[in-house]
Amino acid sequence: MKLSSGSLARLINELAGLPGIGPKSAQRLAFYLLNAPLETAENLANAILEARKNIRYCSLCANLTDAEMCPICADPRRNREVLCVVEEPKDVLAMEKVRAYKGLYHVLHGAISVRDNPGPDQLTIQQLMNRLQKGQIKEVILATNPTMEGDATALYLAEQIRPLGVKVTRLAHGLPVGASIEYADEITLTRALEGRQELNKQ
Amino acid sequence: MKLSSGSLARLINELAGLPGIGPKSAQRLAFYLLNAPLETAENLANAILEARKNIRYCSLCANLTDAEMCPICADPRRNREVLCVVEEPKDVLAMEKVRAYKGLYHVLHGAISVRDNPGPDQLTIQQLMNRLQKGQIKEVILATNPTMEGDATALYLAEQIRPLGVKVTRLAHGLPVGASIEYADEITLTRALEGRQELNKQ
Repeated sequence: MKLSSGSLARLINELAGLPGIGPKSAQRLAFYLLNAPLETAENLANAILEARKNIRYCSLCANLTDAEMCPICADPRRNREVLCVVEEPKDVLAMEKVRAYKGLYHVLHGAISVRDNPGPDQLTIQQLMNRLQKGQIKEVILATNPTMEGDATALYLAEQIRPLGVKVTRLAHGLPVGASIEYADEITLTRALEGRQELNKQ
Repeated sequence: MKLSSGSLARLINELAGLPGIGPKSAQRLAFYLLNAPLETAENLANAILEARKNIRYCSLCANLTDAEMCPICADPRRNREVLCVVEEPKDVLAMEKVRAYKGLYHVLHGAISVRDNPGPDQLTIQQLMNRLQKGQIKEVILATNPTMEGDATALYLAEQIRPLGVKVTRLAHGLPVGASIEYADEITLTRALEGRQELNKQ
């Protein structure tokens, strides 16, 4: 494609490098950014630069934050005896959205891969063990993904944590709400059966 | 959604303002930009800022360009007797991609709206008429979109240009290649019938 402007070609090229953005979308976004008010384009560019400059890992939970400690760790109303271990910062977002959890988090920044990297050393597992050794945390909820890597990570962490006398739990596996049993895969159905619970008598 | 970082919230928010990017995509792109090499994020931000700084309209055809005159207008190998009138810079890209056209372009930056703005004054029609009055151009190909606005614009331009004695043509309407007659809409089929061509005897 011959472009009439080098700056436009470069912009389309950079946009097309983003995940999930194909060449057509990149072109559409580039023309949008050229036609939008100058402020819109500048705000986006500055938001990218500032995010890269300001965002670091929370010194306690390794979540993304602008400050030394993230707002969740710094919040005195959170229950400091329960710790939810997740793979990525986006999992914290997902957990916070449901508003059902009031404890603290620990972000691993990955999962133990069965085949190759990252191994346990590249995750924030040592940092997690240091937190647990202080003795304030009574329960660790392993909220890694229900994938091969997430399961391997949960098993590894459970083994590491149990000797400390801390209660270790895992998010329940089973049928997602709204799903139909007919279309559930076998592993999900097996897990749902294994995790079956007695209905309380009313 | 409670975010652990103001910079992250701002970045997600700016990304979600782009057309075709929903909240989930914006979140995914933001985490990508944070995890990617610093250079990737900076290149994108700088490409946006530089495109806004450098890109202007070509003084001849009003296409987007970094220079006073766009590479197509400046190219001595292009046929300066044929002019293709399009609505938007992206239409020039589409035409150039097929490599079947060797003339020059004129970008209107919109189409005449049947209901409201932009009216003929807000497009580059006066600039187009000035080009035609110089007498070098022998044919104007109206390549506005086959929409109500594009058709209105083509009709308006044809009326304006004909008194100058310049040949005015329009891109053919009809069935797109690969389409089936069964699913073609009535207007397309009517146009295809009207524009039917005799098959040459072999």
